[in-house]
Amino acid sequence: MPILHQMQVSGNCYKVRLAARQSGVAITLRDYGLHDGSTRKPAYLAKNPNGRVPMLEFEDGRVLPESGAILWYLSEGTPLAPADRWARAEALQWMFFEQYSHEPYIAVARFWLAFAPPEALQQKRHLVPEWHAKGNAALGVMETHLAKHEWFAGGRYSIADIALYGYTHCAADGGFDLQPYPAVRAWLQRVAAEPGHIPLAETW
Amino acid sequence: MPILHQMQVSGNCYKVRLAARQSGVAITLRDYGLHDGSTRKPAYLAKNPNGRVPMLEFEDGRVLPESGAILWYLSEGTPLAPADRWARAEALQWMFFEQYSHEPYIAVARFWLAFAPPEALQQKRHLVPEWHAKGNAALGVMETHLAKHEWFAGGRYSIADIALYGYTHCAADGGFDLQPYPAVRAWLQRVAAEPGHIPLAETW
Repeated sequence: MPILHQMQVSGNCYKVRLAARQSGVAITLRDYGLHDGSTRKPAYLAKNPNGRVPMLEFEDGRVLPESGAILWYLSEGTPLAPADRWARAEALQWMFFEQYSHEPYIAVARFWLAFAPPEALQQKRHLVPEWHAKGNAALGVMETHLAKHEWFAGGRYSIADIALYGYTHCAADGGFDLQPYPAVRAWLQRVAAEPGHIPLAETW
Repeated sequence: MPILHQMQVSGNCYKVRLAARQSGVAITLRDYGLHDGSTRKPAYLAKNPNGRVPMLEFEDGRVLPESGAILWYLSEGTPLAPADRWARAEALQWMFFEQYSHEPYIAVARFWLAFAPPEALQQKRHLVPEWHAKGNAALGVMETHLAKHEWFAGGRYSIADIALYGYTHCAADGGFDLQPYPAVRAWLQRVAAEPGHIPLAETW
């Protein structure tokens, strides 16, 4: 059974747990501490030189880092995968958008405001306004899309929705207010109502 | 013929020009200024609310932003596409790595050091050490991979190599020294020797 090297509170790791559950792939979880630097130690770096979670490790020793790549791999051949060439392009458009224009502000604000030790947060507090401005810009881009579309790619629920749900649904942890984004809030409810949905806190 | 909305000096746009050329797809270029804010004006935002280049616009009006999504779309069915499920996962792993752990430091350092007005650079100069530290970490991850592999995904030249070549080959513009990365330098030469390769400056 593949092992998901993960941190439970990480939205990037949650995306993989959610996609695995909804695509019927059994995985084992191996947890790492948020603050103990265990993913930057030699044993971990030997598997993933980039020192990050999530990483999926297969029984034959192959490893796959990067939540977007793991979502793609796990979903191939399942209803979570985008169904045709254009839907694949749309899904990747939003998955790259999430990692470049959304996660670095919304997930990072959440990490520092909700999980970092207070003395570490003090070193970063001057960055909060920029995180909020750029994170709200990303939420605005999502709102524009969702005002006209039910889902992000191919007209149906897919890994693109999972990728964006990961940190959008808990954006309040980073000090974001979703009140100005009614289409985003309605979409969050649609995602949470999908069969097999699990909350971020659920483990096994 | 699809229109690539682009800036000529952008490595993200160069990736698309290179992949289009090597996959035999004819595209028209529409150029935007680096500093005139033209991709943040209403006419552009109506097509891409995220206000970025590259964006590929098709004759039927569909638009596709995000270089990684465009590379995926253009290469489907060509030898530039990763060939099987595992190669697709490897390619996306490196393409997401590039956008999250490489481009925000190596491309951003290049933009500010090589293309920004001097007075604007002054506002950012305190960030250069962090860009260099994190960019060098990304180059180290590439070096570790390339010390044992000729290419990034599926054992052959693909869009994953194009995605990483875009800003690695011009990293010196951002003050990076590639001397400590011999495997990266050898790979850059292999990429540049591929049939149909064009340099960043080439236009049509």
